[in-house]
Amino acid sequence: MPAPELHPDLEPWRALLGTWAGPGQGSYPTIEPFGYLEEVTFGHVGKPFLAYGQKTRHATTNLPLHAESGYWRPVDGGRTVELVLAQPSGIIEVQAGTFDGTVFDLRSTTVLGTPTAKPVTAVHRRFELAEGGEVLRYELSMAAMGLEMTHHLQAELRRQPAG
Amino acid sequence: MPAPELHPDLEPWRALLGTWAGPGQGSYPTIEPFGYLEEVTFGHVGKPFLAYGQKTRHATTNLPLHAESGYWRPVDGGRTVELVLAQPSGIIEVQAGTFDGTVFDLRSTTVLGTPTAKPVTAVHRRFELAEGGEVLRYELSMAAMGLEMTHHLQAELRRQPAG
Repeated sequence: MPAPELHPDLEPWRALLGTWAGPGQGSYPTIEPFGYLEEVTFGHVGKPFLAYGQKTRHATTNLPLHAESGYWRPVDGGRTVELVLAQPSGIIEVQAGTFDGTVFDLRSTTVLGTPTAKPVTAVHRRFELAEGGEVLRYELSMAAMGLEMTHHLQAELRRQPAG
Repeated sequence: MPAPELHPDLEPWRALLGTWAGPGQGSYPTIEPFGYLEEVTFGHVGKPFLAYGQKTRHATTNLPLHAESGYWRPVDGGRTVELVLAQPSGIIEVQAGTFDGTVFDLRSTTVLGTPTAKPVTAVHRRFELAEGGEVLRYELSMAAMGLEMTHHLQAELRRQPAG
């Protein structure tokens, strides 16, 4: 089946499409700092949303660490972003934010967990397209484990060849 | 990289692993009935959760209809199920339920939407392993658009060959 045309509402976000990969560093007051390798994919089916998937592996052991999946929805010509996310840790997020042509700045409006999930109360995600759209920088802060909003992750991902 | 061993907590759910596909029928008081083709995948990375993805296409036009992605978490030896889900329609769900060896009976504990999502307030999902684990029957009811819990979807999926 031929690839569908990108929905016009997604045109401002076209640079996200594809697969991104690169190294990141994680830290939080409750854990030891760690390095990781991240892979992010953005796909579309011709409808006005992007399917988003993310996986990380430990930089040394290569064992799987985090994963998440969800959908990005453009509002107001793509200047406003709605994001819904699920995580295997039993957490779901609704995020809302803005896109200025370079930076997606997203904050949780709701974070909820299953009964056995760790307590996360707020998440701030920032994605920056850099180097002519070949690099995607990512930062995440969160309020969790009873702490205020605190830096947790940063990664620099490079666009991967198609195929 | 070799496939990791299944986490012991997932052993009771082993029959779910892989890809399932088949036809379904949808209806709801607010829409015309429709037929669809569904594909569901359950994957694992050696940790105590299943990654779940679902996509449907219209039976006649073959155009993409629904999609959802999330994670299933076993509790209490797999007899209790926690499910987190995101949908491109801007909806997230936390579900909780039971597994009796054949039927996963799951009810939403939380359904939330982004500001532009349609109003869904509760979802009941039932998955039944049948015919020696070769068939997965699926039914979904929901309370949406101001209506009480009402039947919406039913599908009969067959296990697809690996690879």
